[in-house]
Amino acid sequence: MKKVVAGIDIGGTFTKFGIVDQDGKVYAESSISTAKHQDIDTYLDQLARAIRKLLKEEEGRMELAGIGIGAPNGNYYRGIIEYAPNLNWKGMIPLVELFKSYFDIPIVLTNDANAAALGEMMYGGARNMTDFIVITLGTGLGSGIVVNGRVVYGHDGFAGEMGHITVIENGRQCGCGRKGCLETYVSATGIVRTVFELLALRNDESLLRKISFDKLSARDISAAANKADRIAMKAFEMTGRILGRSLADVVALFSPEAIFLFGGLANAGDHIFKPAKTYMEKHLLNIFRDKVKILPSGLTETNAAVLGSAGLIWKEILG
Amino acid sequence: MKKVVAGIDIGGTFTKFGIVDQDGKVYAESSISTAKHQDIDTYLDQLARAIRKLLKEEEGRMELAGIGIGAPNGNYYRGIIEYAPNLNWKGMIPLVELFKSYFDIPIVLTNDANAAALGEMMYGGARNMTDFIVITLGTGLGSGIVVNGRVVYGHDGFAGEMGHITVIENGRQCGCGRKGCLETYVSATGIVRTVFELLALRNDESLLRKISFDKLSARDISAAANKADRIAMKAFEMTGRILGRSLADVVALFSPEAIFLFGGLANAGDHIFKPAKTYMEKHLLNIFRDKVKILPSGLTETNAAVLGSAGLIWKEILG
Repeated sequence: MKKVVAGIDIGGTFTKFGIVDQDGKVYAESSISTAKHQDIDTYLDQLARAIRKLLKEEEGRMELAGIGIGAPNGNYYRGIIEYAPNLNWKGMIPLVELFKSYFDIPIVLTNDANAAALGEMMYGGARNMTDFIVITLGTGLGSGIVVNGRVVYGHDGFAGEMGHITVIENGRQCGCGRKGCLETYVSATGIVRTVFELLALRNDESLLRKISFDKLSARDISAAANKADRIAMKAFEMTGRILGRSLADVVALFSPEAIFLFGGLANAGDHIFKPAKTYMEKHLLNIFRDKVKILPSGLTETNAAVLGSAGLIWKEILG
Repeated sequence: MKKVVAGIDIGGTFTKFGIVDQDGKVYAESSISTAKHQDIDTYLDQLARAIRKLLKEEEGRMELAGIGIGAPNGNYYRGIIEYAPNLNWKGMIPLVELFKSYFDIPIVLTNDANAAALGEMMYGGARNMTDFIVITLGTGLGSGIVVNGRVVYGHDGFAGEMGHITVIENGRQCGCGRKGCLETYVSATGIVRTVFELLALRNDESLLRKISFDKLSARDISAAANKADRIAMKAFEMTGRILGRSLADVVALFSPEAIFLFGGLANAGDHIFKPAKTYMEKHLLNIFRDKVKILPSGLTETNAAVLGSAGLIWKEILG
């Protein structure tokens, strides 16, 4: 029988999962709603059934060797989702322990950005790298950091919170309760805030003046920038500047071979990659200049999260 | 015969070295001048002779199994001292290769802060830790970062340059050519600059008004703070605030168990530890609060550098 694993990506709205072999081939994929489950038990019931159904479709040719799960605030060491603001289940959810009653095989949990880094390392653009960083630019800014070929979890499993380094003293209010965190400027929601700041400060005509705060998305801003909208272009430039400056600091600490940008905001391409690179180089210590690549993910977004979670558990199984 | 290593600490003025066994016992120690040698070859000649002399005194009971060297800008991967501003030998010095012609045994080089971290891990306060950071507060600010029990060297061997993260945009001129680097504020020289800024800004009487910039040392400032000198106390508070804020960022990335402060400025004790701790906690993301210790080094300064370099090579030999 062919050994496979299940890779699960728990998002606030949907949970995606797939059956993946060691080479990253996805045999079957599906998803269930996360948001409709107020109760973790009914959620896990449905998830377990859905995974068994996928396996059954392969008619007994597959042996499930392990399960990897990426989830917001997932703690690798403890197997617990801890106080995830965007999930219905509050407090500490011992996900690995709970899921073991459905599948008595190795199950490992980590946060979504670490899973993205593992996916990049096993199946994406970081296949031959031992030192690199993956930055996910979605609602927030997540980071998965790899040193010596291993994800940096730190003493308590919570390393890699680059979204919460302080970039502007007493800056924008962050969801974490503090002010001036990187993700309040550099993320899909951060750039929306920057656009509104610019709409207030400047008089330039802009396509974006017709869209409300709640409706404006990073994709709208990217579309406007493609049409040379000055507010949109300036917003990307400001976002890239803050990102680039922070990347220079992170390079000084980690000296990575490459930094991968991933997720919503990264899809804007040159609008974000160009200023990020320019300002990173400008702020870099001389010994690091022209050495560190800023790259798009080598995985397509649709299966990257599932592949990342699969990579997580394969890495455990293969040692 | 007892297996021992030589630990060598190359400083701008002196080079200290010792014969050290696996348990960190120092059998013999000595030093030679670094500064008087304009030529690397005459320097290495003298150093090799001095090490052989130490071994000879042990009357053939010791077998030299390896040599560990800590030096400013020492690159672990390449074995090269690269453009060290405080050494006489300019450009790229292939130290390991050159020294191999004297001792045909394993020789490893790293920078002084990484050596300090290895010393702390093998013989000091980090003996049971796998994730911690050592910060050396001397003329500059150096950092040795340990993740999963291994020093973070990064892709090209230059990781751990915490002294050169930018803390104040367009801030003080740094020796690296950029502005606002952490070490221009937080180091033995940084606090001298802060005192002079305060002497200009304020009218408080101060013992420090009688000392010129070139003569003022961190030790003078510490002595003045002990006498409740307001300028000195304020300077420590400002230094600790910037350090604490930066530590919070570094904790978000690495989630270390502890941070060790080491070197000149760390000798000021509570004057620097207290504000560093207060402001670190104030800026920490909630999941890290009250978890991360800020500790003095567990090694005495006199032999810490030699033990660190010895730890470096023992770590290689023992695997």
